Amino acid sequence: MKGSVKDSTYTEVPEVVIIRLPQYLRTLTRLRNQGIDVVSSRQLGDLIQMTPAQIRKDLSYFGRFGKQGRGYTISGLIKQLRTILALNEEWKVGLVGIGRLGRAILSYPGFSSEGFKIVAAFDSEPSQVGQMVGGIMIQPMHKLAEIISAEGIQICITAVPADFAQSVIDELISSGVKSIVNYAPVGIQVPDDIKLRNIDPVIALQSMTYYIKKGCV
Amino acid sequence: MKGSVKDSTYTEVPEVVIIRLPQYLRTLTRLRNQGIDVVSSRQLGDLIQMTPAQIRKDLSYFGRFGKQGRGYTISGLIKQLRTILALNEEWKVGLVGIGRLGRAILSYPGFSSEGFKIVAAFDSEPSQVGQMVGGIMIQPMHKLAEIISAEGIQICITAVPADFAQSVIDELISSGVKSIVNYAPVGIQVPDDIKLRNIDPVIALQSMTYYIKKGCV
Repeated sequence: MKGSVKDSTYTEVPEVVIIRLPQYLRTLTRLRNQGIDVVSSRQLGDLIQMTPAQIRKDLSYFGRFGKQGRGYTISGLIKQLRTILALNEEWKVGLVGIGRLGRAILSYPGFSSEGFKIVAAFDSEPSQVGQMVGGIMIQPMHKLAEIISAEGIQICITAVPADFAQSVIDELISSGVKSIVNYAPVGIQVPDDIKLRNIDPVIALQSMTYYIKKGCV
Repeated sequence: MKGSVKDSTYTEVPEVVIIRLPQYLRTLTRLRNQGIDVVSSRQLGDLIQMTPAQIRKDLSYFGRFGKQGRGYTISGLIKQLRTILALNEEWKVGLVGIGRLGRAILSYPGFSSEGFKIVAAFDSEPSQVGQMVGGIMIQPMHKLAEIISAEGIQICITAVPADFAQSVIDELISSGVKSIVNYAPVGIQVPDDIKLRNIDPVIALQSMTYYIKKGCV
């Protein structure tokens, strides 16, 4: 594929567009694994439930992809999206909160296969500290700043109870963490220069009851 | 608030709009809890990272909310969104897969507080069956169809290994389940009349590396 990739360093791409790119990537990868080589913005839109115009607009921030009327070459678009999202390198990830959910996260194979390697884990519970889980030794909270800084960790996952989430995230940020995936079901405030994503299954459930009630499903 | 709610029974609302409504609801609820009474589509757009025009268009599917130039009355909009999404009733939920993640889900307080009550749990592991977790007795997989049907469960959460997810979801669908929240990191195929949401922390991680690489955060 011969798309040209714009230098987006000084172009302000809306964050909502960046948030959609991994969804495009996931869908394109699925199509490639099904043996499909080319996809139109309309077909992609049907799969992702977006208008073809929105997809073309989203991708146009990064250059010209695909040829008019010919659709996108899937392998080329995957490669370029991975470059844009910086997914061709390994990212170190810290995890705070090693309860049931934290242990499930530590044993989840989907992170490292996608280049996200959990290299440090922390818990406030003394009985947990020093245990090995998934090849990682659980560290006490008072070592958090030191280890985050020494390892150069910029991404953390928080799986702590809701009441502790804000203070833990504050400490992560003051230790140099830039991006946080939060599992606690509570509104978290972060400075403008920090990226926060909330994993919230209730939001997913709440968009399905509409259809059950309506009798459409 | 005196907005009029359209009868949307015969209006085709794009699914992407329905998916956004719980996000509006979550943000509006947070604003209300901060003591704020009225919000403009621009302020809401800044918080949700969407254009004010898109927010007004999304809400227009369901009637007229807010007054020109006056913004939305938050308490009224919350009430109407909860009615649209059918969130004023209790929904029974089944859970399949009681490993670490499944146990974390069973002990998660955020479901029942939002009206989603886990009433049945299933696992294929004989040593798990019969155990009580979070007040629920774990049932064997061969009782799945019988219990789902007897309880009238229409919503299920799957927390099974990737290799088993498709077959478990097929069985849920043939047992009458209409809506599924899937935690397995694998592409699942469902008929058009079934709603599927995937909970995928990797997608969240992949939209943050862009900013770290770019040096913006």
